Amino acid sequence: MREVAIVGVAMTKFGTSEKTQVEMFAEAAMEAINESGLGLKDIQAVNVGNADGNIEEGQAVIAPMCAADIGLSGTPATRFEGACASGTIAIRDAFIWVASGFYDIVLAGGTERQRIMSTPLATRVMGMGVHSRYETPTGLSFPGIFAMMAHLYASKYGIPLPELKEAMARVSFKAHKHGCINPKAQFYGKEVTMQMIYDSAMVASPIQVFDCCPISDGAAAVVVTSADIAKRLTDKPVLIVGTGQGSSGAVCSQKDITRIPARELSAKRAYDMAGLKPEDIDVCELHDCFTIAEIVASEGLGFFEPGQGYKAALNGDTDIGGKIAINPSGGIKAKGHPVGATGAAQVYEIVKQLRGECGPRQVEGAKIGMTDTMGGSFASIGHLILKRGW
Amino acid sequence: MREVAIVGVAMTKFGTSEKTQVEMFAEAAMEAINESGLGLKDIQAVNVGNADGNIEEGQAVIAPMCAADIGLSGTPATRFEGACASGTIAIRDAFIWVASGFYDIVLAGGTERQRIMSTPLATRVMGMGVHSRYETPTGLSFPGIFAMMAHLYASKYGIPLPELKEAMARVSFKAHKHGCINPKAQFYGKEVTMQMIYDSAMVASPIQVFDCCPISDGAAAVVVTSADIAKRLTDKPVLIVGTGQGSSGAVCSQKDITRIPARELSAKRAYDMAGLKPEDIDVCELHDCFTIAEIVASEGLGFFEPGQGYKAALNGDTDIGGKIAINPSGGIKAKGHPVGATGAAQVYEIVKQLRGECGPRQVEGAKIGMTDTMGGSFASIGHLILKRGW
Repeated sequence: MREVAIVGVAMTKFGTSEKTQVEMFAEAAMEAINESGLGLKDIQAVNVGNADGNIEEGQAVIAPMCAADIGLSGTPATRFEGACASGTIAIRDAFIWVASGFYDIVLAGGTERQRIMSTPLATRVMGMGVHSRYETPTGLSFPGIFAMMAHLYASKYGIPLPELKEAMARVSFKAHKHGCINPKAQFYGKEVTMQMIYDSAMVASPIQVFDCCPISDGAAAVVVTSADIAKRLTDKPVLIVGTGQGSSGAVCSQKDITRIPARELSAKRAYDMAGLKPEDIDVCELHDCFTIAEIVASEGLGFFEPGQGYKAALNGDTDIGGKIAINPSGGIKAKGHPVGATGAAQVYEIVKQLRGECGPRQVEGAKIGMTDTMGGSFASIGHLILKRGW
Repeated sequence: MREVAIVGVAMTKFGTSEKTQVEMFAEAAMEAINESGLGLKDIQAVNVGNADGNIEEGQAVIAPMCAADIGLSGTPATRFEGACASGTIAIRDAFIWVASGFYDIVLAGGTERQRIMSTPLATRVMGMGVHSRYETPTGLSFPGIFAMMAHLYASKYGIPLPELKEAMARVSFKAHKHGCINPKAQFYGKEVTMQMIYDSAMVASPIQVFDCCPISDGAAAVVVTSADIAKRLTDKPVLIVGTGQGSSGAVCSQKDITRIPARELSAKRAYDMAGLKPEDIDVCELHDCFTIAEIVASEGLGFFEPGQGYKAALNGDTDIGGKIAINPSGGIKAKGHPVGATGAAQVYEIVKQLRGECGPRQVEGAKIGMTDTMGGSFASIGHLILKRGW
């Protein structure tokens, strides 16, 4: 297996789009290809992460439509679906293809257009990430799952709920603080105070509106190639040095959702491949679909001991300049969560951070970064570890 | 890249199932694993082709659910979608992963449950394989597309429509003749006469009911591993010696749908990788979603010159014992078409044929076989070439 690098990255502004999913992908893809210094004809395969495009727009077989839209008709074009982890899986596959030498240059990313759906439909569509035979009939939806996670976390570690709620509010506040200064974020320019967070409507106790990520439209794309090719194109190639993927079944089959074995297994695979440890990571974009999810992920990735993640959030250890910078982009919470695009947008942010191109939200001196993406009922989990290649 | 083999294959009986897509996949997967001589713990990744499970059953993130259902929770589990080519793409990816040495043993296949949908819903869902911005609003659906293909074919080659209709009827008759003796086929045991075909209802002139494949439930799975491992498990390993994938955009962007460049490109990639030519293929399972589709595919794959495929169908050149045995399983037309599973079921048939395990529908002495799968508006096309490994 040879060294693999990322040479071009782009994303649309997340939020509400009048463009179709194909058009959004094309926008991100063309910008990523242009940034890479490669030409269209150099792209040998197109991988597209997309979760629910057939419901959102009546568009199946979206990857070939994306390829054709940018003039790459004929090129192998594959759609990957792992709910919210779709984009990460698409990029991970591109990594395997390039690492193995089967292809030299693969365009990979994701796209999703959710805001075209009514709220009731969006709620049902997002809810398709649980087990349709065992869980959908119970009415289980994601705010409910993460509310259970919060109660279990508080109970397991003996944390008074108000203290956990404050930690969750801090996660939200940090996300919005970063999203407010990220021009690509859905909530760019929107200042959020702790009081606004505490005053927001209850969704599924203890989850309030400001504990939840939004429904979003957007796309992101990256160009994956060999390190050798990358070094000819740029003096700042970012290497993919580790990747992992894990899976789980129905939530009801999982023993303790304050620890997610699929994540820990997947992260271990990525760390082992990279020969790195959690303490080596300078910056991480992780799956904060709900504020409690960030706390649990920060432990699952090994940044903090189990039961200590909430304290880290309270202490600012996960802020830019803290022990580990988590979600400097604003994360899913404030950057937005067009689910198929999310993993690719995480990679976009980490690449920009490692290159030092993040302006006011830059994590100074970041050399190694990680992405963590979780789809469905902790069902599909993917990790990538990226490293400065210079 | 190392040699890759298939060591276990299985499929459910196609038709109507009370099982969910996950359960059908589990049934096929367990049988394939058992047949391979491997244990569950040997499986390192699970690839699932599925086109529309989120609409059919409200089930997204289906691959992890399939993995968990057979006791493989934790294992990387990925869903691939390329409409009707989903299963082929899932297996092709398993091939790349194993060929590269990234994994040694991958379970790959597909599943789909369509008959749970009403006919109007199924019509809409199948129609999602065209371009949702440019074509869906025109009312374009697949019987219409293939009706246009038939008219264009007749016109381009100066064939009187009744003669082409007879060739199409012969394709249908052959499919049902084979499906009638294939216990896994949806129309197993159903004898069909030429008169029944001619008398069937008109769908979209000249396409009649017996020119169309049915709506189906089913799953199929195969175990992909290195040739070295395969040789320790069986004295009849079947090698994957070539693979190709191609893509197209909207139908309206394609110049001449009696020739499909994405297929010709993809097939060339597969032939080149295998170092083989069309005349080397003994048996082929190709994408006969409509009878005219078989005729056009038999030319696109190089078995007959453009404009000569209809004559081959009339002359019985594509029957078992003919120049090239096409769709001895009954094909999509008579075996059934649970779209996500179709590509994997094609591989099942070819592996069984190469092993000589097909009883009354056996193509005698078959040494090299091919699968051809086409998804959506000719949008996603995949090929595999298989060869006896002994």
